Amino acid sequence: MTSRIAGSVRVVGAGLLGTSIGLALTKQGVDVAITDASPASSALAIDYGAGRAPHPQDEPTIVVVCVPPDITAQIVSAELAAFPKAVVTDVASVKSSILESLISANADLTRYVGSHPMAGRERGGAISGRADLFIGRTWVISPNPDSTDAAVVAVENLAHAVGAATATVPAVEHDRAVALVSHLPQIVASLTAGQLVDADAADVLLAGQGIRDTIRIAASDPALWVQILSANAGDVVQLLKSLSRDLDSVIAALENVQAPGALATLSKALDRGNQGASRLPGKHGAQATDYSTLTVMIDDKPGELARLLTEVGEVGVNLEEIKLEHSPSSAIGLVELFVVPSIEPHLSAELSKRGWRLV
Amino acid sequence: MTSRIAGSVRVVGAGLLGTSIGLALTKQGVDVAITDASPASSALAIDYGAGRAPHPQDEPTIVVVCVPPDITAQIVSAELAAFPKAVVTDVASVKSSILESLISANADLTRYVGSHPMAGRERGGAISGRADLFIGRTWVISPNPDSTDAAVVAVENLAHAVGAATATVPAVEHDRAVALVSHLPQIVASLTAGQLVDADAADVLLAGQGIRDTIRIAASDPALWVQILSANAGDVVQLLKSLSRDLDSVIAALENVQAPGALATLSKALDRGNQGASRLPGKHGAQATDYSTLTVMIDDKPGELARLLTEVGEVGVNLEEIKLEHSPSSAIGLVELFVVPSIEPHLSAELSKRGWRLV
Repeated sequence: MTSRIAGSVRVVGAGLLGTSIGLALTKQGVDVAITDASPASSALAIDYGAGRAPHPQDEPTIVVVCVPPDITAQIVSAELAAFPKAVVTDVASVKSSILESLISANADLTRYVGSHPMAGRERGGAISGRADLFIGRTWVISPNPDSTDAAVVAVENLAHAVGAATATVPAVEHDRAVALVSHLPQIVASLTAGQLVDADAADVLLAGQGIRDTIRIAASDPALWVQILSANAGDVVQLLKSLSRDLDSVIAALENVQAPGALATLSKALDRGNQGASRLPGKHGAQATDYSTLTVMIDDKPGELARLLTEVGEVGVNLEEIKLEHSPSSAIGLVELFVVPSIEPHLSAELSKRGWRLV
Repeated sequence: MTSRIAGSVRVVGAGLLGTSIGLALTKQGVDVAITDASPASSALAIDYGAGRAPHPQDEPTIVVVCVPPDITAQIVSAELAAFPKAVVTDVASVKSSILESLISANADLTRYVGSHPMAGRERGGAISGRADLFIGRTWVISPNPDSTDAAVVAVENLAHAVGAATATVPAVEHDRAVALVSHLPQIVASLTAGQLVDADAADVLLAGQGIRDTIRIAASDPALWVQILSANAGDVVQLLKSLSRDLDSVIAALENVQAPGALATLSKALDRGNQGASRLPGKHGAQATDYSTLTVMIDDKPGELARLLTEVGEVGVNLEEIKLEHSPSSAIGLVELFVVPSIEPHLSAELSKRGWRLV
């Protein structure tokens, strides 16, 4: 496979993102040098196939800085100085504070283009690195006013090379957006999950899928998130204050549900939740699509799901999503198939005809 | 199929839950009469096969009241009076306030056993009814001190007949538990989603899976939730106040991240989120299991997924979960297979041998 990348790539930082970038590029035959402040992390990433150790004579065309947010600006500065012909980017989840630090440090901003791949996992480290981590994800490109066109194109090429789709968003707008769609939900999930810590075990046992989804990202790495949140504190605080006001009005309403307006306050809060949820983009970045669902009951044993999906394939239907549920009380499983609505009656009829139990 | 249910069942209220109970029991050959204050809803549920219209001479052995929480006590009272030999239960998601109303109304509590099937969907109404809605779900049984053993057994039999597992939890404990695991997450999700309403469209476009999960239940029915929240206001307010205090401390920390203790406050909030998330029960009500995952890249076309799962079945492996992801930029899909950790190396080796692209 030929890559979009000309020349060598230098990756600084062998955590989840650095290792994943190295794996993806190395697979395409790109020459990748990967390094980390921790020799053990460097060695692990190289062992995984994420690149080779750097040589003193390396002349990378692009340097990708994948270190924690609090030292990103410092490393970007050092790399700009060390490789005077290279374009340098970073992948930190905040952009404005890093750009400000680089301006203060008189860095050569013509060759710097900040970026932020919107990809991650709850687990970090080289050990979680995956060559496919960026496939289909959005990789935000945040040029600064001094960035050259060539530098921007180089970073876009990098993102496209590892399978991401790019979106150009300046630093200030980027930070405002991620405060809303990433940092606010992180705090909300963490604080909500925190309410479970001292709860009775019997109470927690009644938890279902709702709370499970609401607090899923509460499992994220606290050390990383302390850095992200403090680097974007201004934007995040504005949203948290708005949330706090809304929360206080719900508390006031619930403290006296008989008071005039109390039920209206609750209703409005829930209504706005409906409205907000409907604004989320759907698959492929388009507006959310309402898929039709078909639920099929199958025996909970190896091969049954495959037999079902084989027949779905024979009918010529492409599934949009699939969900499995197992029953605790019996040896059956439920499979929820998501398809575009126009296909559903046909699939339903075909599966019934073939003897599947639709429920 | 013979059912665990002896005699006739009367279902009052033909919404999601009433219709689903009617569908499940009718399938087992149980005689179900279903009725609703709205003749159109009754007719629709009967049309769907959820039961027949009531006759004046009906003598149900059990009456299941499936009406909105705010009129549940009144209807339970009326049914206890109308059918002096029947056991009466209800399915409202709050239990204490209903029991208090029944005590005030001097209802015959020996024949009343409150209950709450922990099943639901974001969509309501008879049209969303499904015979499998309760399979594998927990159905909470909340006897009151006067409930006879026979009445409790009758309600347990009902829950088991539709495939649910039962848990006995008195009304007060039930309401405290659902405040934590259901009502708190609902408010959190709704208020967080509410912050999206006035946001720039470009900001919302950067939303990924994290916020999508966090606010999924914000799509729930506001009218129903106003009733649920106001009927359990006391327990919910306590939790919201605790959340509000935690939120205020995070805001204070972010307003001055340089202040002594600020980063420790953030770190502690995120740490407690980790701890709380780890308390959620896993599949089958047990402690959460860490499954191993294998990611396979497939062509995004009909039949490929089935071919993969056929081979997984041939290897003799039972999948715990499966997730599909489609790439917007290319014609490939990623399939994440979740299996018990001991099986993963074997499955990985077998799939590689068969030519699948593991990533």
